[in-house]
Amino acid sequence: MERLRDLDESALLARLFPLYEDAVPRSPQAVPVGPGDDAAVLAAPGGSVVATTDGMVRGRDWRDEWSSGHDVGVKVTVQNLADVAAMGAVPTGLLVSLVADPDTEVSWALDLARGIAATAADAGAPVVGGDLSSGPAGVVVVTVTALGDLRGRRPVLRSGARAGDVVAVCGSLGRSGGGLVRLLAGALPGADELVRAHLAPRPPWESGPVASDAGASALVDVSDGLVTDLGRVARASGVAVDLDGRVLRDRFADGPLTAALGTTEALHQVLAGGEEHSLVGCFPAGTDLAALPGEPWVVVGRVGEVGPAGPRVTVDGVVPDARGWDHFAGP
Amino acid sequence: MERLRDLDESALLARLFPLYEDAVPRSPQAVPVGPGDDAAVLAAPGGSVVATTDGMVRGRDWRDEWSSGHDVGVKVTVQNLADVAAMGAVPTGLLVSLVADPDTEVSWALDLARGIAATAADAGAPVVGGDLSSGPAGVVVVTVTALGDLRGRRPVLRSGARAGDVVAVCGSLGRSGGGLVRLLAGALPGADELVRAHLAPRPPWESGPVASDAGASALVDVSDGLVTDLGRVARASGVAVDLDGRVLRDRFADGPLTAALGTTEALHQVLAGGEEHSLVGCFPAGTDLAALPGEPWVVVGRVGEVGPAGPRVTVDGVVPDARGWDHFAGP
Repeated sequence: MERLRDLDESALLARLFPLYEDAVPRSPQAVPVGPGDDAAVLAAPGGSVVATTDGMVRGRDWRDEWSSGHDVGVKVTVQNLADVAAMGAVPTGLLVSLVADPDTEVSWALDLARGIAATAADAGAPVVGGDLSSGPAGVVVVTVTALGDLRGRRPVLRSGARAGDVVAVCGSLGRSGGGLVRLLAGALPGADELVRAHLAPRPPWESGPVASDAGASALVDVSDGLVTDLGRVARASGVAVDLDGRVLRDRFADGPLTAALGTTEALHQVLAGGEEHSLVGCFPAGTDLAALPGEPWVVVGRVGEVGPAGPRVTVDGVVPDARGWDHFAGP
Repeated sequence: MERLRDLDESALLARLFPLYEDAVPRSPQAVPVGPGDDAAVLAAPGGSVVATTDGMVRGRDWRDEWSSGHDVGVKVTVQNLADVAAMGAVPTGLLVSLVADPDTEVSWALDLARGIAATAADAGAPVVGGDLSSGPAGVVVVTVTALGDLRGRRPVLRSGARAGDVVAVCGSLGRSGGGLVRLLAGALPGADELVRAHLAPRPPWESGPVASDAGASALVDVSDGLVTDLGRVARASGVAVDLDGRVLRDRFADGPLTAALGTTEALHQVLAGGEEHSLVGCFPAGTDLAALPGEPWVVVGRVGEVGPAGPRVTVDGVVPDARGWDHFAGP
C-alpha cells in the first residue's frame, strides 16, 4: 500500500496537478498563471475579488468510516463555494492546502483531489494553487480558499435586511443535519439521500448571483443552522425575523426528512441543522421570486422592526429554544 | 491559565479581530468588505488577483521551545508575502486559518495573531478573513492565504529567463539556514541575528514590484535554497545558470555567517539554506540594478544556453552536490 511518505512532494504534485487540470480547462484569460509558480494569477474582471477560507479536520469535521476522501473533497469545496455565493459572486478559483500524516495512503489523497476537482468542475472554478505539508501521526487537515468575482454586482451583505423584506430559502433545509442523525444511529454512508446530503452536499451556489440580481438586501448560506445564521443577519441588520412554521414544516420537513426522523426531529433539523449550505436571502416585498432562474426560492418568513427584545429570530412569534423545535412546537 | 476550550468561537474572534483591525487600517476603497461576513471583498484595481497559500505545522515547521506564537505569525505571513512579491505584485490582503488543540493557551493564539498583524502592518496588507477549527491533541496548524495586485504590471514568472541575463539577489542568503544550525547546536532563540532570521525573517518583499519594473525576466523567492530555487527557474526557462562562487562568498557568506558557522558551512548555507525568502531575479544584461530603489541587488551569476546536460545550476561551472558546498569548494 502506497503512503505519502513513499513519494516526494514533486512526485505527489505530478499526480495531483493533472486531476485538477483535467477537471476544469483553464483559459489564459481567466487564469493567466496557474499552479507551479510562486503564486497564481486570476482575472478579476469586476475590479474586486471575493475571498473566503474554510477547512476540515479529520476526526472533528469528518470520520473516515463515514466519509471517503472524495466526500471530504466535495464538502470542503462546497463550504467555500457557498460562502462565495452568499456574497452574490461567481467562483473563479480555488487554492487547496493539505496537511497530512506521511502514513496517509496516496490513494486517499488522490481521492480527495478528485472530490475537489469534481466540485471545481461543477462550479467552473479551477484549482490554481495550494500547499502540501506533513503533519503529526493521524492528522489530516484540508483547507480550501475560494476566490470569486462579483461581475459588476454589489456584494450582498448580512447587514442589509430591512423591515418589510421577505425571507426566502433556495435549496433544502435539515437534510445534512438529518443525515448526521442517521449516521450517528448507525446508517451506512450510502444509506439514503439524507446521509449523502451530509457527506457530500450540493447546495445551489449558482443562485447567489441570481439573488443579487433580484435585489436581495441580505444573503447568507446555512452553515450553522437556519435560526443561527438568520440570527447573524438580524443582529448585523438591526431587525427581527419571524419564520413561518407551517411553511417550514410543509415545504422542508415533510417527506424524506420526517419519514426518516419523525416530525419533531425533522422540524428541529430544519431550524437548527447546520452544514446545509443552502442560501437564505432577504428581499424587498413584492420581489417576484417565482420568476428567478435556477433553483426555486421559497418564502419562509418576514423581516420586521426590531422590538424591545432586540434583534432576534422567532418562529410564529416564539423564540425557538436551543433545540429549536421543542419550544417552537409547544407542548 | 486560559485555554481555547474556555472560549467559544465568537468570543475568540472578538479578541482576534481588533488585533488585526488596529494593525492595518482598512480603507473602504481597498477593502469594501472585511471580516465578519460570508467572505471578504478586496479591490483588484489591476483587473487580476495574485493568490498563494502556505502553512506551518507545529513540530514540523516550528518548535515551541524556539518559536513564540509571534514568531510563527511573522514567519507564516512572510512566506506568503514573499510569494506575492516573487510575482512582482503588491500584497493586498491576508486570510488566516488556525486549527488548534482546544488545550492551546489563548495567550499563544493572541501572540500568533499579533505576529501576523505586525507583518500585515509592515506590508500594508490587512487580514480580511479566516477560519478557526479545533484540532486533535497537540496539533496546531496555521495556514495563510495572501492576495496581491499587479498594479498593471505583468506577472514575472519562473519561465522567462533567457541566455545572457544576469542573476541577482535582493536580501540575504544562508542566514535562516545558519540560524537553524545554531538552534540545533543549542543556541537560544534570541542568541543572534542568524537565529532571529530563522525564527522571524524579514525579506525585502517590497522589491518584487521593483524587479518587475526593472524588466526582470524571471523572479523567485528563496524558499528551499538558492540552488534548488534557481534550478526551478532553469528548468522552467530551459536555460543553464552559473553562479559566481567568489561573489557568494564575499558578499553573502563572509561576516556573521562565517563567524558563526565557519567557512564551509557558511557557504553551504548560502547555496542550500532555505526559508530565507529573499528574492532572486534574472534581468537582461545591461539592466542598471544599482539604480533600483529599495534594498540593493547583487549580481551573483549569469544565465547561459542550456547544454547537453540540460537545464541546471552550476557554481563556477561545477554542479554543487547535495550538500552544495562540498563539491563546489573542491578538496
